[in-house]
Amino acid sequence: MIAQYPPMGWNSWDCYGAAVTEDTVRANADYMAKHLKPYGWEYVVVDIQWYQPTAQTHAYEPFSDVMMDGFGRLLPAENRFPSAANGQGFKPLADYVHSLGLKFGIHIMRGLPRMAAHRRLPILNSDARCDQAANPNSICAWNPDMYGTRAELPAARAYYDSIFQLYASWGVDYVKCDDIAREYPHCQREIEILSEACRNCGRDIVLSLSPGPAPVEQAEHLKQFANLWRITDDFWDEWRLLKAMFERAEKWCIHAGPGHWPDADMLPLGALRQCYEQDGEGPDAGERSHHGWTNFTQAEQRTMMTLWCMMRSPLMMGGDLPKNDAFTLKLLTNAPLLAIEKESWCAHPVCASETACCWIAPRKDGKGCYAAVFNLSDEERTIAFPADALEAGCASATELWTGKPADGSLSATLPPHDAAVWQITY
Amino acid sequence: MIAQYPPMGWNSWDCYGAAVTEDTVRANADYMAKHLKPYGWEYVVVDIQWYQPTAQTHAYEPFSDVMMDGFGRLLPAENRFPSAANGQGFKPLADYVHSLGLKFGIHIMRGLPRMAAHRRLPILNSDARCDQAANPNSICAWNPDMYGTRAELPAARAYYDSIFQLYASWGVDYVKCDDIAREYPHCQREIEILSEACRNCGRDIVLSLSPGPAPVEQAEHLKQFANLWRITDDFWDEWRLLKAMFERAEKWCIHAGPGHWPDADMLPLGALRQCYEQDGEGPDAGERSHHGWTNFTQAEQRTMMTLWCMMRSPLMMGGDLPKNDAFTLKLLTNAPLLAIEKESWCAHPVCASETACCWIAPRKDGKGCYAAVFNLSDEERTIAFPADALEAGCASATELWTGKPADGSLSATLPPHDAAVWQITY
Amino acid sequence: MIAQYPPMGWNSWDCYGAAVTEDTVRANADYMAKHLKPYGWEYVVVDIQWYQPTAQTHAYEPFSDVMMDGFGRLLPAENRFPSAANGQGFKPLADYVHSLGLKFGIHIMRGLPRMAAHRRLPILNSDARCDQAANPNSICAWNPDMYGTRAELPAARAYYDSIFQLYASWGVDYVKCDDIAREYPHCQREIEILSEACRNCGRDIVLSLSPGPAPVEQAEHLKQFANLWRITDDFWDEWRLLKAMFERAEKWCIHAGPGHWPDADMLPLGALRQCYEQDGEGPDAGERSHHGWTNFTQAEQRTMMTLWCMMRSPLMMGGDLPKNDAFTLKLLTNAPLLAIEKESWCAHPVCASETACCWIAPRKDGKGCYAAVFNLSDEERTIAFPADALEAGCASATELWTGKPADGSLSATLPPHDAAVWQITY
Amino acid sequence: MIAQYPPMGWNSWDCYGAAVTEDTVRANADYMAKHLKPYGWEYVVVDIQWYQPTAQTHAYEPFSDVMMDGFGRLLPAENRFPSAANGQGFKPLADYVHSLGLKFGIHIMRGLPRMAAHRRLPILNSDARCDQAANPNSICAWNPDMYGTRAELPAARAYYDSIFQLYASWGVDYVKCDDIAREYPHCQREIEILSEACRNCGRDIVLSLSPGPAPVEQAEHLKQFANLWRITDDFWDEWRLLKAMFERAEKWCIHAGPGHWPDADMLPLGALRQCYEQDGEGPDAGERSHHGWTNFTQAEQRTMMTLWCMMRSPLMMGGDLPKNDAFTLKLLTNAPLLAIEKESWCAHPVCASETACCWIAPRKDGKGCYAAVFNLSDEERTIAFPADALEAGCASATELWTGKPADGSLSATLPPHDAAVWQITY
Repeated sequence: MIAQYPPMGWNSWDCYGAAVTEDTVRANADYMAKHLKPYGWEYVVVDIQWYQPTAQTHAYEPFSDVMMDGFGRLLPAENRFPSAANGQGFKPLADYVHSLGLKFGIHIMRGLPRMAAHRRLPILNSDARCDQAANPNSICAWNPDMYGTRAELPAARAYYDSIFQLYASWGVDYVKCDDIAREYPHCQREIEILSEACRNCGRDIVLSLSPGPAPVEQAEHLKQFANLWRITDDFWDEWRLLKAMFERAEKWCIHAGPGHWPDADMLPLGALRQCYEQDGEGPDAGERSHHGWTNFTQAEQRTMMTLWCMMRSPLMMGGDLPKNDAFTLKLLTNAPLLAIEKESWCAHPVCASETACCWIAPRKDGKGCYAAVFNLSDEERTIAFPADALEAGCASATELWTGKPADGSLSATLPPHDAAVWQITY
Repeated sequence: MIAQYPPMGWNSWDCYGAAVTEDTVRANADYMAKHLKPYGWEYVVVDIQWYQPTAQTHAYEPFSDVMMDGFGRLLPAENRFPSAANGQGFKPLADYVHSLGLKFGIHIMRGLPRMAAHRRLPILNSDARCDQAANPNSICAWNPDMYGTRAELPAARAYYDSIFQLYASWGVDYVKCDDIAREYPHCQREIEILSEACRNCGRDIVLSLSPGPAPVEQAEHLKQFANLWRITDDFWDEWRLLKAMFERAEKWCIHAGPGHWPDADMLPLGALRQCYEQDGEGPDAGERSHHGWTNFTQAEQRTMMTLWCMMRSPLMMGGDLPKNDAFTLKLLTNAPLLAIEKESWCAHPVCASETACCWIAPRKDGKGCYAAVFNLSDEERTIAFPADALEAGCASATELWTGKPADGSLSATLPPHDAAVWQITY
Repeated sequence: MIAQYPPMGWNSWDCYGAAVTEDTVRANADYMAKHLKPYGWEYVVVDIQWYQPTAQTHAYEPFSDVMMDGFGRLLPAENRFPSAANGQGFKPLADYVHSLGLKFGIHIMRGLPRMAAHRRLPILNSDARCDQAANPNSICAWNPDMYGTRAELPAARAYYDSIFQLYASWGVDYVKCDDIAREYPHCQREIEILSEACRNCGRDIVLSLSPGPAPVEQAEHLKQFANLWRITDDFWDEWRLLKAMFERAEKWCIHAGPGHWPDADMLPLGALRQCYEQDGEGPDAGERSHHGWTNFTQAEQRTMMTLWCMMRSPLMMGGDLPKNDAFTLKLLTNAPLLAIEKESWCAHPVCASETACCWIAPRKDGKGCYAAVFNLSDEERTIAFPADALEAGCASATELWTGKPADGSLSATLPPHDAAVWQITY
Repeated sequence: MIAQYPPMGWNSWDCYGAAVTEDTVRANADYMAKHLKPYGWEYVVVDIQWYQPTAQTHAYEPFSDVMMDGFGRLLPAENRFPSAANGQGFKPLADYVHSLGLKFGIHIMRGLPRMAAHRRLPILNSDARCDQAANPNSICAWNPDMYGTRAELPAARAYYDSIFQLYASWGVDYVKCDDIAREYPHCQREIEILSEACRNCGRDIVLSLSPGPAPVEQAEHLKQFANLWRITDDFWDEWRLLKAMFERAEKWCIHAGPGHWPDADMLPLGALRQCYEQDGEGPDAGERSHHGWTNFTQAEQRTMMTLWCMMRSPLMMGGDLPKNDAFTLKLLTNAPLLAIEKESWCAHPVCASETACCWIAPRKDGKGCYAAVFNLSDEERTIAFPADALEAGCASATELWTGKPADGSLSATLPPHDAAVWQITY
């Protein structure tokens, strides 16, 4: 099955925005193959606007010339992805990633290029044209490249078939479709034809929907038509965003399972925002400092990794991998922690307040469970996992960040924003 | 001053939709000059998509080729408006209308053509291009032709200046700008630069905003920046819409005054929907019958005319004038009734229920007032204007639809949906 | 007819809260008869909890012993209203007020005393008891004395009949019923039986509903069943409340007319809060200073009087009349200003902003109109009434606060929060 | 700890409304001791208005004389509970229940009797009186007996202490407090002092809050201050209510745990509405038929029992136990099913639609799990538990209603509204 476990990988957005290049992707793939692959990391994902020759930052340039073929299908900008020359698209790059034993993914926007509609380009294997499949009244609120489709028309499905056929021919393993996960009910039908095109393209491709917050009322629809979907708007390295994720995780935890994973977004760790030359550019300038390294404290990074693993969120590293320092690398290679993603199920919070939160996750093999405590306050606190909540008892327990056995009770004295998580054996 | 009284005229939408032609406009202008001009009717307004060569119905065709000049300014489609040949635009047609002693108006959509943005056309008298003035995220929900502007940029104002300069050169007296009156707060700034461009173009041009419902909370903004603004969505010849107008009129009546008039929309009288070959096409097909004549009863037509006059709404005939029958012509030439628009002020309802409504309007010259009663029920009813509400007394009164003097009380036995209105002298 | 013009009078709440006494009422009546009667002031109204022997401030004492007869009808507390001894109720006091050529009014809460229900007292001229007429689930949110009625039962109407019969026998001319005007739809039926009991009691009694804001959507219901209704919550001597009244007045102005008057609440002028021994007691303590004199500046007082007159609000003086200073007395005896209430109609604002507002009011006799300008800003401003809005022209004009003729334009240089109002002749 | 597992018992409301008597309680206790005790059933709970001598149906009689002591503490009506004579309260009845090896519970309304406030009765061990502890503005919307308290005052806590001291002296083991669980935020503080009084009374008393729906946003507050709280309004034997419970259960499932149980309300099974002489009386008359037996089909009863067990809701039988038929008794004594309440944890739905729903619940001992499927449609359907969702595999499985082993897949052909549930071993 596709996405039996939550996918793990790297995505270019947090470090290179709309300006990612082939060199960067290869460098990250190399690093992943060498340092992370043994720990389960496998997807290398090229994020937004790889078809835009002039993209240089996180910002979008409206009405610019995008690369596309005669059927209105976007192609990698050759000045940024040289191996795409001669109409080869992402195939050479995908081949390279595959040669490392990894998998290759791309980002797309829902719909078709506005330019393809205004030029009335034909749709491959269809009598209809792009202007007939496009919905002139359906646009993205923040990116100027595309029109949504008239999803009720065969022409729209034909267009999605045509692009997934192309992606399959390139060897794409993972598609992150944007501007589609929170737009219910308007995009409900568009999600469905997107999903059908994906599943009928002849290749196993993980389908991920963005951005969030996806509406929790649509959980069953999302589970049916996608493998991943974002549960928040873009997540960045700010404590208030990380703290807010606890509420989201609580709402979504019961919907995680094989083939369908609520997605807490990329991990903004290590070297971020590498496409900026100076502070103050980019999204949300002024709200947070824009130096090129994560603003999260080490404690906050542990908390994030712990929460993502306990809720079984996909793990997509956002930082530039080759620039990882020792701490970051260690964070991404904590094997007993990462095992939670595969070995637990039915996780949920057992208590939550403004200052602390505790989660429980039974092990599927019945031999124990995982218990996590989070210090959400701005002060050092000793936080005990509530004994009553451990209904099955606890023969022995090991804390997974320190590797130390628990002495008697599941309790930890934690710096502000830090976490502890025990592997418990009955 | 501009629009000292509520403008009166004809508009092509109700009879010819997006498919109006020069022949039709001339024929309506000729009729107006001959039959209606003495009663105050003067504006001849060409409604939407005069720049679209292939428009044939009320429907819009996305991504079609629109006529425009090298500065992204829309021009009349020459196949539909032959006098516009050789770059003359609407000047010859406006000249003709002026030669009849009438005034000439056009409809525009807010913003600039999508095609002008995608082609990156220059803006006249500006260093900026259309793609720089366009807001790629601002579109109309129902018409695919335009992008809204980045109203905060000088380029946007420059574009509006360039089109009003063109309209002034053509001799345009009235501009109805669409997709802008209900879109607060998003279009607030766009209304302002539109208005400034209009007032600085060197010609007196009435500025009318559509569609409604404009938000009544924005009354002062509208009064400051426009001469007319729509208080409802499109009005058609259906009783439920006419009945609903009473509530709108009540909310807006205090905001009518010289230079600023809440607009209850066109009068769907006489020959409507002339661009349809058969029933069932066009907007709202299936909700109402689409034969080519107004669905309003004669009683309903009297009610509409009475309400529009009492609230001092602009009067824009929507039917094809040359096809008027005797009743319709008489309706439009009831001079004592039409006088209410100029001679009254401070009108408002004095009572209202599901079945009946009464309005009072003092005369400005202090010599009397107007009192109207409306039968909103589906049965014949005798409705009396409440004696208490006539605070200044009543020496004599004449009913303006029948011409009969009132005998004692202001009371009328009315068929369903009919109205009576008295001119009262103290 | 009842309340042909907006009632004018005095009410005890602003100065004596729940602790008003007979002495105070008589002193205010004496003053009114001597100083104000010639200017149209006539109602003397005893406000809340005259039946409560221990009331001493604005506060209410729950579960206290209230005075009532064997039919659950509240009676004046004899320790506070000595003339009520021997079961005479308010008759002696009403007689006294009548002897001065004035009219007498009282405040009531909707419903019947909780104590009457818990004691299961009989209802006069009914087989039912108070506990059967009371709705145990309908209470006032701020006063603990009463239960609302089961208005759908004859017993409820019987109870209201029994109290209005008593009030008529006392000679009451005005009843202000509280906890009933904003509670739509719950109190809709209770308003109706209250109104019917009032109109069937054999005496002309003005019916006033409180507190506001009454919902403007219910204007027609209020016009049908009451003579006055409050358009705001309690109004006090704070500029922010006065400024906010302009928005209320705009919404309600078209609903003023003979027999039905939107009520902007008492005039908190002169000596207020006389039942407090020191600052800081009473409602909203801490939000405003509680010395015993109005916090309004003289400019604000002019603005209030001007707005109340232009909108034709009832005028109920809230300050202790005998303590009036010369300024206050002059304010209440500006005959040309007060004449607006009787001689104008169809008033409404013609422009409004955060800093200024203008109102127009035609004269019923057709000989002119009134035009007011208000400086709502915190700075001195010169404000001109818009010339266009004076559609009927202006032969001559006199400003009513200064008595000076206008020289050319209707323009005034006003201190912060001040107003000017012109009487215009054509 | 109190309520380590979800409480199981019987409650008098569904069968005897406000009219329950001592005889009935004893008969139900006898039956429980004899037939149900071995299966974990233990609480015998007397529901609302045991203090009201004249209660005869589900309806409440306002302003009636309730039994209470001199401290405003309600006492059992002696005509209905003879053993309460001589001020013994519920002690003799509780003693009897205890003698059977069972536990005794009572229903209370939040607050104190209105009559105690109006009579200004003293509070035990306090200087304050009931009128001082009562909040005259806080009443129940549907029951006329009580005032809420001024929870911020020591007097309010003192009153709650006084009643729990009494209940402890009687030997009460379970208190269901009504009119308090959905009234956030108004009752937040009242819940807290209620809870503190309960926990400080010297006896282990389960605290249950009603009615629902309690707001899920308050889950942590409820978990802290109560043992049970209702997640819906009153539940009755109607399919639409049972179907709607699935959505509630999904929202609340993660909040179930030792000491704190979301409560899906009583089980309306067997003999209901025994206090009615004929159909058509009682709450919601006309919406459902009121014969004296459950309207649920046998399939629906299995679905209810399965859902309640999977979500670990408390189980409170609502029908008159001695009238149980064989089917009902068997339903209540399905030991392997009831074991889910004690042996599972971390349950949640894995898929849900309008027509079907599936739940998973791991076993705490790690030896397996429970999987349930529900046919929510009105037709027979074959419903398979999704194989992917059974992440830990399935060595063998037994269906708990039929006792049959699963053959290969977890799939069942179910009549409308029926359920199947498997006990799975790894």
